[in-house]
Amino acid sequence: MRVTLLSSAEETEAAFYDALSRADIEALMGLWAEEEEIVCIHPGAQRLVGHATIRASFEAIFERGAVNIQPVLLHASRNMMTEIHSIVEQVERTSEMIQDIHILCTNVFLKTPLGWRISLHHASIAPGRAPHETFRASMLH
Amino acid sequence: MRVTLLSSAEETEAAFYDALSRADIEALMGLWAEEEEIVCIHPGAQRLVGHATIRASFEAIFERGAVNIQPVLLHASRNMMTEIHSIVEQVERTSEMIQDIHILCTNVFLKTPLGWRISLHHASIAPGRAPHETFRASMLH
Repeated sequence: MRVTLLSSAEETEAAFYDALSRADIEALMGLWAEEEEIVCIHPGAQRLVGHATIRASFEAIFERGAVNIQPVLLHASRNMMTEIHSIVEQVERTSEMIQDIHILCTNVFLKTPLGWRISLHHASIAPGRAPHETFRASMLH
Repeated sequence: MRVTLLSSAEETEAAFYDALSRADIEALMGLWAEEEEIVCIHPGAQRLVGHATIRASFEAIFERGAVNIQPVLLHASRNMMTEIHSIVEQVERTSEMIQDIHILCTNVFLKTPLGWRISLHHASIAPGRAPHETFRASMLH
């Protein structure tokens, strides 16, 4: 497993969506915190807990190809050890896909000895088009 | 607004579901962090940001009555300033309601000068019955 020292949650999040866009399972799984309680919820799916289960889910997704997602409309709260991002996942859509939904996502990052790692990824489907908001982020504590 | 010193994230979460069960809007809103970037996503709904919007959404919910939810199957990660709970929300169902879905929820709590407050509540619909897992929680850091 590639071990990278990720110096910010933003860097880790960018690496996450980059790994998805390249269907790179090793890069993707190397971004998660090294503890068993990591949680991943794909849109409209059941909760997955732990490295093995989460890895298997992404392997199944990558069998259908890479996933191009642009994270936008970030709301962030952060302190020295944790960062929580609420984002809209802008998915590259083909013409057959439904246009009147969007994906909301909560990403939680923890500062570990190996840098900022993903602890939780919760994505879900919301009705309507993505809201038009200006970028906002706050520094807490 | 009632100001309570909430000494743990567990206490805040219990107070949250208690306020929902009593349709007590003041108690409910007093549990959120006092900053504008608080985020609330109700199941199958759009993202709400900020006290005013979130309060209005719960007022609309309470017009239809109280909400009885039992949080179960907790997976938690925590450090000194933040606690993230991934739970299944066991909703009291009437016979007309669909039985083959369940609600997954991410609750984020921050330690503030006024105790542990809710920063983010992200609930979403998952297919099938709630998984049967034994309770697990981990202490990180």
